[in-house]
Amino acid sequence: MTAPMFERVALVGLGLIGSSLSHAMRRKGLARSIVGHAQSEKTRDTALRLGLVSSVYASPAEAARDADLVILCVPVGACGALARNMAPAMKAGAILTDVGSVKGAVVRDVGPSVPKGVHFIPGHPIAGTEHSGPEAGFAELFEGRWCVLTPPPGADEGAVRRLAAFWQACGSHVEVMDAQHHDLVLAITSHVPHLIAYNIVNTARHLEQVTDTEVIKFSAGGFRDFTRIAASDPVMWRDVFLNNKEAVLEMLGRFSEDLTALQRAIRFADGDTLYKLFSESRAVRRGIIQAGQDTADADFGRHHGIPGKQP
Amino acid sequence: MTAPMFERVALVGLGLIGSSLSHAMRRKGLARSIVGHAQSEKTRDTALRLGLVSSVYASPAEAARDADLVILCVPVGACGALARNMAPAMKAGAILTDVGSVKGAVVRDVGPSVPKGVHFIPGHPIAGTEHSGPEAGFAELFEGRWCVLTPPPGADEGAVRRLAAFWQACGSHVEVMDAQHHDLVLAITSHVPHLIAYNIVNTARHLEQVTDTEVIKFSAGGFRDFTRIAASDPVMWRDVFLNNKEAVLEMLGRFSEDLTALQRAIRFADGDTLYKLFSESRAVRRGIIQAGQDTADADFGRHHGIPGKQP
Repeated sequence: MTAPMFERVALVGLGLIGSSLSHAMRRKGLARSIVGHAQSEKTRDTALRLGLVSSVYASPAEAARDADLVILCVPVGACGALARNMAPAMKAGAILTDVGSVKGAVVRDVGPSVPKGVHFIPGHPIAGTEHSGPEAGFAELFEGRWCVLTPPPGADEGAVRRLAAFWQACGSHVEVMDAQHHDLVLAITSHVPHLIAYNIVNTARHLEQVTDTEVIKFSAGGFRDFTRIAASDPVMWRDVFLNNKEAVLEMLGRFSEDLTALQRAIRFADGDTLYKLFSESRAVRRGIIQAGQDTADADFGRHHGIPGKQP
Repeated sequence: MTAPMFERVALVGLGLIGSSLSHAMRRKGLARSIVGHAQSEKTRDTALRLGLVSSVYASPAEAARDADLVILCVPVGACGALARNMAPAMKAGAILTDVGSVKGAVVRDVGPSVPKGVHFIPGHPIAGTEHSGPEAGFAELFEGRWCVLTPPPGADEGAVRRLAAFWQACGSHVEVMDAQHHDLVLAITSHVPHLIAYNIVNTARHLEQVTDTEVIKFSAGGFRDFTRIAASDPVMWRDVFLNNKEAVLEMLGRFSEDLTALQRAIRFADGDTLYKLFSESRAVRRGIIQAGQDTADADFGRHHGIPGKQP
């Protein structure tokens, strides 16, 4: 058994990501001790009962005290206040990171509170499920997924390397980019997809001619896949949209422009345009499967275990 | 072993749905013989090699001759010409049905060719995967899914009952409704979801600031789920949009209206509106799981076999 990477890791927030990190760290022996903070007493109790943490604190500052790695695992909108609370308690040389889906806003909100000597390196593991809470976590969540780090200019290189090694030990690939570019990439690969999934569920719920029961019964034609995405945590997603406004509006503008062109092709029965566009999508799907970011299993059948065939 | 429901079933088209029907019929002994037609020689050879049919014909009329159940399993746009070709060969008392995702256009295109004495009962099993072709089929595809029948006014009740019993034997629930209502329901539960999935893949492919490689690498944040939907058969989907134009444009108009309202909520940082709408989506998801149209497995993790938790 090699020495753990960190003596004391503080998980500030114990939902899906925090609990999954605990499982992943324990499996690989990455921390000598794992402590945590959660706002709700119920979550703190659950975390102790599940053994996610050895100690849990109602005060984020108490959790962060003496930790050499502090990970904010909360909705993006909650990071600023937590950082202000914890900052005075953090020890010199510690790494402060987060797991939020928006990085520019975290730099804006957390950056000013970070004490001298603490290494603030924002991060984002691109992994998740539609479930939330301390019981939703599992050790394999980060395996094969990408984790993006967005160290600010002048960040300590040794600290960046340590944090990258930590995510790699959790099973992730690591990529470094600047916060602004991250926010643009995620706007198209994650934020707008979630927004349109939420939107179509909303549209379907408010039709006069089609009942909610019909929408549910006949959902296997595609709609049910959108409801899975739209079942994700509403607070997390509200905060994403409030904090990545510019990039989301930019990508949404392009999406709507393209949708209008498709609508026009349908109105004027332009089958060639539709066919060409639909055919080209398959190449992107193949790329994702080849990159190991999804499997080729025929998931619409949902009979997992039936051998997948390459599309 | 009870007697088969049908003496001779003709599968006109041997892709995902035709081949799955063959597997389902064989498993349950629903047909004494299964014959087929496919346009391409390669598909005909594959169908024979896989034992999907005992005889395969280049001529649709030859396949339909003497059959007491003929099932059109082709893209919606191909039904009319095939029906005109087969109609003279069909025997009195036979049932002619289809599996298309649009029903009004099939009634319009097929109806006029149907000879007196043949029972034309359009159908639509709401089941599928993102894969296509004769090798993609499996017997369980229809299990627990809904099959909608849209018998025209005055259709023979005995024939409708026989066809309903056939789909039930394949594992499906059956619902009867009129063609126009079917097309409206499917526009929102299937057609518009596919269109916006195709659309966002297209938008992502044409960004100047984000590379295709980045889109693929960081797709696990939601985008990859859309690419799965957008990997479906392009001919089938082109035909759906060309043949369900009015209902799709109507639903697309509502979708865009709702999306504009969401966009406005983001622009003006209206977190309460976003939170309320995101929260309400979870109820629809729960309804779908309770109705058995999807499982509660945490599929974003894609580690199937990890026990699902109720969202």
